[in-house]
Amino acid sequence: MMQMKPWKDVLSELEAGSAERESAPERPHDVVDRLRGTGFLALRVPRAHGGADASLRRVFEALIDVARADSNVAQALRAHFAYVEGLRFAPSGAFQAITDGSVIGNAITEPTGAAAGDFAGLSTVFTRTGDGWTITGTKFYSTGTLYADRVWVWGVTEQGVPASALIPLDRPGITVVDDWDGFGQRASGSGTTHFAGTPATTDEVVVAGSEPPPRLAIGAFLQLWLTAVVVGNLEAASNDAQTLLRGRRRGITHGTTELPRHDPVLLQQVGDIASKAYAARVIVLDAASLLDDVDARLHAGELDGTAAQEAGRRVAEAKISVERLALDAATALFEVGGASATRAGANLDRHWRNIRTLASHNSTRIKARVIGDHVINGSDLPDNTYF
Amino acid sequence: MMQMKPWKDVLSELEAGSAERESAPERPHDVVDRLRGTGFLALRVPRAHGGADASLRRVFEALIDVARADSNVAQALRAHFAYVEGLRFAPSGAFQAITDGSVIGNAITEPTGAAAGDFAGLSTVFTRTGDGWTITGTKFYSTGTLYADRVWVWGVTEQGVPASALIPLDRPGITVVDDWDGFGQRASGSGTTHFAGTPATTDEVVVAGSEPPPRLAIGAFLQLWLTAVVVGNLEAASNDAQTLLRGRRRGITHGTTELPRHDPVLLQQVGDIASKAYAARVIVLDAASLLDDVDARLHAGELDGTAAQEAGRRVAEAKISVERLALDAATALFEVGGASATRAGANLDRHWRNIRTLASHNSTRIKARVIGDHVINGSDLPDNTYF
Amino acid sequence: MMQMKPWKDVLSELEAGSAERESAPERPHDVVDRLRGTGFLALRVPRAHGGADASLRRVFEALIDVARADSNVAQALRAHFAYVEGLRFAPSGAFQAITDGSVIGNAITEPTGAAAGDFAGLSTVFTRTGDGWTITGTKFYSTGTLYADRVWVWGVTEQGVPASALIPLDRPGITVVDDWDGFGQRASGSGTTHFAGTPATTDEVVVAGSEPPPRLAIGAFLQLWLTAVVVGNLEAASNDAQTLLRGRRRGITHGTTELPRHDPVLLQQVGDIASKAYAARVIVLDAASLLDDVDARLHAGELDGTAAQEAGRRVAEAKISVERLALDAATALFEVGGASATRAGANLDRHWRNIRTLASHNSTRIKARVIGDHVINGSDLPDNTYF
Amino acid sequence: MMQMKPWKDVLSELEAGSAERESAPERPHDVVDRLRGTGFLALRVPRAHGGADASLRRVFEALIDVARADSNVAQALRAHFAYVEGLRFAPSGAFQAITDGSVIGNAITEPTGAAAGDFAGLSTVFTRTGDGWTITGTKFYSTGTLYADRVWVWGVTEQGVPASALIPLDRPGITVVDDWDGFGQRASGSGTTHFAGTPATTDEVVVAGSEPPPRLAIGAFLQLWLTAVVVGNLEAASNDAQTLLRGRRRGITHGTTELPRHDPVLLQQVGDIASKAYAARVIVLDAASLLDDVDARLHAGELDGTAAQEAGRRVAEAKISVERLALDAATALFEVGGASATRAGANLDRHWRNIRTLASHNSTRIKARVIGDHVINGSDLPDNTYF
Repeated sequence: MMQMKPWKDVLSELEAGSAERESAPERPHDVVDRLRGTGFLALRVPRAHGGADASLRRVFEALIDVARADSNVAQALRAHFAYVEGLRFAPSGAFQAITDGSVIGNAITEPTGAAAGDFAGLSTVFTRTGDGWTITGTKFYSTGTLYADRVWVWGVTEQGVPASALIPLDRPGITVVDDWDGFGQRASGSGTTHFAGTPATTDEVVVAGSEPPPRLAIGAFLQLWLTAVVVGNLEAASNDAQTLLRGRRRGITHGTTELPRHDPVLLQQVGDIASKAYAARVIVLDAASLLDDVDARLHAGELDGTAAQEAGRRVAEAKISVERLALDAATALFEVGGASATRAGANLDRHWRNIRTLASHNSTRIKARVIGDHVINGSDLPDNTYF
Repeated sequence: MMQMKPWKDVLSELEAGSAERESAPERPHDVVDRLRGTGFLALRVPRAHGGADASLRRVFEALIDVARADSNVAQALRAHFAYVEGLRFAPSGAFQAITDGSVIGNAITEPTGAAAGDFAGLSTVFTRTGDGWTITGTKFYSTGTLYADRVWVWGVTEQGVPASALIPLDRPGITVVDDWDGFGQRASGSGTTHFAGTPATTDEVVVAGSEPPPRLAIGAFLQLWLTAVVVGNLEAASNDAQTLLRGRRRGITHGTTELPRHDPVLLQQVGDIASKAYAARVIVLDAASLLDDVDARLHAGELDGTAAQEAGRRVAEAKISVERLALDAATALFEVGGASATRAGANLDRHWRNIRTLASHNSTRIKARVIGDHVINGSDLPDNTYF
Repeated sequence: MMQMKPWKDVLSELEAGSAERESAPERPHDVVDRLRGTGFLALRVPRAHGGADASLRRVFEALIDVARADSNVAQALRAHFAYVEGLRFAPSGAFQAITDGSVIGNAITEPTGAAAGDFAGLSTVFTRTGDGWTITGTKFYSTGTLYADRVWVWGVTEQGVPASALIPLDRPGITVVDDWDGFGQRASGSGTTHFAGTPATTDEVVVAGSEPPPRLAIGAFLQLWLTAVVVGNLEAASNDAQTLLRGRRRGITHGTTELPRHDPVLLQQVGDIASKAYAARVIVLDAASLLDDVDARLHAGELDGTAAQEAGRRVAEAKISVERLALDAATALFEVGGASATRAGANLDRHWRNIRTLASHNSTRIKARVIGDHVINGSDLPDNTYF
Repeated sequence: MMQMKPWKDVLSELEAGSAERESAPERPHDVVDRLRGTGFLALRVPRAHGGADASLRRVFEALIDVARADSNVAQALRAHFAYVEGLRFAPSGAFQAITDGSVIGNAITEPTGAAAGDFAGLSTVFTRTGDGWTITGTKFYSTGTLYADRVWVWGVTEQGVPASALIPLDRPGITVVDDWDGFGQRASGSGTTHFAGTPATTDEVVVAGSEPPPRLAIGAFLQLWLTAVVVGNLEAASNDAQTLLRGRRRGITHGTTELPRHDPVLLQQVGDIASKAYAARVIVLDAASLLDDVDARLHAGELDGTAAQEAGRRVAEAKISVERLALDAATALFEVGGASATRAGANLDRHWRNIRTLASHNSTRIKARVIGDHVINGSDLPDNTYF
């Protein structure tokens, strides 16, 4: 897709210094910038609007590549792509911002804990003014906003009607606080965003009734995004296991070969980890294909709940399988290294920390129960952003 | 593909009585017959020759369906499809036998243990006679021959030149002995085949030098076949877990709901098993797509060893991941049933027995070591029928 | 403990032919007989009554040995030992039957499914006659009764009062049907026992109010018995893995050594299985020591529910850990063998079948939930024969 | 053992602030001091010399307690206890230092990488002076020395004869550098120790030929120490899982109960983790009992290599089983928490980091291979400090 520079080179640039950045207070602003010129951010923009109109499968393929290179940046772009997904269903898609190279962040979740996808509980208020609106409220887990040019903010009007807006982040009254305190995905920019009477134009605000038709399976899209970032980490762990074993120069105590890189027991472990990486990528890409099917139906005007449910189910099943593969691999990685592999300087624990953090977004075991209830008792699968 | 009858109905017919057949001395001759009219056996025959020219991905998809319905029949057809793969590269493809509905069995492996793909060590002898050949020798693990119309037999001429033939099984001197003694895949017809001066025509015999060009990745095809049959068993185990839990009428001791089918802990297990089934199918189908790539290159005249090695690697990695998923699921299935699920009459142990038997064809751990050696030390992957 | 013959020799005799017996309709009557003279059956009889007064830890140690040699016999003796445990609390312990070499079977569970330990729901009736009682009813899962001399039968009087009796199996009206149809523990004699007006003397019958004081943790004892038999199977699987690898004479395809027995990857697997066997035995023996503590307190007159609950919890935790180790090992065993290890003749699948059957007696996952509820919410642990 | 204060109270004090200390640059000097008065450090000192003469089982039991409270302190005391083990075999045991409350650190391993237990390769030199010795050299991985009063240093004389000494850390020329850079066990004080012409008296130096008789199984002791610290972390992870679930106040999305603490799926997970903690402790304590057996034989003058090998084997098997349980549990812990459990402030990832670091000291898979080689081919087990 990438006009100016081979995608492979872009990835190498993203990857360089990724381990060091992760363990430093540094934030990867440059890395996000480097993606702007590549076409990646506009992959889902229709051709008519200057994008690549790529399939979701293609997007998730590129996403796994990005996540392998820099897991934080990959997660930070989740809201950006989710916003574009919605835009594709809007009557007059305002894709200009995207093709101009803008990155979109989010300001959706609130500290008070409205339920998933429930506008009603939001306390952020959109107030009418003479010629527009002002927005006041506080959002947390606003992943990616730290690196974004514009922010997608959700709230309610004073009458309690759902409302959302896309506004530039340099608008007055916006404060982005980098206070995400996770032991993983440290640089994902998942902090707090405050709006204190931030002005917005009538063009920017969409009030319920005027919004695009419901986008089925957007929850599945959002969930699969996280699982794909997990796969990127798994691939990075597999690569690191190979680099680690290849680089060992001292014989291993009780080993059977002069160099560890020829020890059958360690090679078996490397092969096993590689097989996990292959499996995980394939599972996510298949689920992405199912989302493409749903997308095609929606564009064809079929609001097919069954296909969306099927896709949602498979996305949840992908999460279950992929996380197990990834956590196991990120743990097993150390079995091909010696004690020096545990040096903080090597930062090889970051894969487990990242995966463990991503996997904790929504309970995997509870999802398994929901699937069981669906297949056994025919219960509907949830249609919200947490499933 | 299925002209006469919906594929779904064919599968239901195959599945009916599958569990009972497995635990009886009965052999599923009828079941194989039922597949003859469906087009399945000719899926890979080019359109010009009356087949469907289906992709390998499509074949493996249908194969998993068949294996889910009857694991033994699915394995029994391995040589049939491998033979057709070779035929597609022969100058004058003799597809008539296939489109006529014939089933092909194999007579390749010998008790004396020639190495994988090594004609030199074969003791079955092809002897020239006045107007043809006679064949004498003994083969074991001749899977599928019990259900076949013709048999594909490998040997050497008296001069030690590799030779093979496809001959009808009602030819004089052939004895098929149903002496396979596995605890799984009991009805796969993997017994012994004796040839005692069996006549063959010059048309039927192919001697080295006159055979089709080497078919790269045929080993990968054969190996993926077994892994796909494993997936079929895993899907059957998942279905049986659901049927089992749905059917329980007595409350479970120390459970939290009146009926076991509503118990969250058991539903979580069902969802987990379902996710394994999904993952396993997807992995095999992706590997099949890679074989399609190799196939396309070969037909385009590119003898690309790299693509074949890549496919071979992924097929081996698929075996590693899929077997673990399948063995775990076939064991976990009982966790949603009570003591009565262990009745021999229910025959729910057959999935583990089948999978365990299929998985033992070639050492999975050794394959992992080979992959490790490939990615770490750049060793070539083996190109034989065991990898 | 064993006066006449070294215990090791007894075990060798039990083990000889165990694999063959398991796959034949044969029942191990001789094997049970062979244990009569060894003192094993009277291990828990007090010294004053001619027994060894062995600790429960000692009993479970010997039990694992027996189970390793013959898993069916080990399970069949469960009711025998449970009966003796009760006897130790009876005012006038009638140990004569035990020291005479009698084996005790059970007739407790009923087809109609009274809840665990719930006499009230039993339909077997004890009816007073002129000088004694008659017993009428049907019992299933009456494990061990096939090999027993006497049977321990539970029921209610016509007034609904709980009653039990120990009576000789050659008493009129008793029919023992060998109709247990499990795919594992085939020869455990867990069939049906019918009582049709079977006479019993007043001495033989114990009616509620006259029975020994409540034996806390008898459920834990019964449950640990099954887990110990699982350990025996695991040890047998570990031994079989070693024998299998040691005996392989043909080089393994893609292996790194001439003989499989020197292949590091296969040796690693053998070591791993051995470590599972060690862990499992140790876990069960520790839980047995906790039962010894409970036993000591009970004999000292302390009806300490806390110690009994602690023991019950650990027994349940032992089940959770041990079953996972055992099922994994019984599956992994085949990874050190080739295809020939799956021959029904070798009967190496019996370990998985036995373990799977034993493990299905009571839901392991549900027990984990109960423990979780206990440690999180302080719920009492169940005190019944199923926990 | 604990004269002044109940052991339980000591543990509570150690535990307080343990999570915070771990994530800070702070080092737990106070915590080590708090153990001085408890008798713990002199548990293995013979009664005649003022100690408790406790069994190794008792020591490992207390060690697991300490590790649960503070994993770093537990590891830091490894050399101290190893030194005392050796002292017990010295003709005139100099236990005064121990009973006085001194903590012993180690200075054994060298950057140049002499093989395990191989004095010959050491570059630290003991040089004779007029009335004593001077010691010059650099040691790394000198765990515990940061908290110690005296250090146990190994080297060779100028003639290449092995030599060792126990000297006070305030001796001239000693520099202890806190440069251990692990992502786990951060505060274990496993840094570098430099000796620059450090003086030692003739009393303090033991030269080969004058040392106590060989202490078999000291390697097993050292290895089991690490495994016991792993168990402490596992127990802490299990406790944290319980605290986490108990404390959740918001309902879980897609859950079946109002509060997460009543959700059967989450309770099952807590029960499962608890069962792992129980299993792991029991395995280590059993292996400790085997070391007690070896110890008793050695004191009785039996230099029984077989018993020592058996103990060494079980210690290695314990490592294999325990690490798997512990890594799984430290990963699964997060499945009972929500996204907030991944806050760095909660520091719940420290258990995985600690266990992963401890487990990487010596390759677990290679140990499994060694055991496999021992049981299959009768190879001797290594007798060094790495096995």
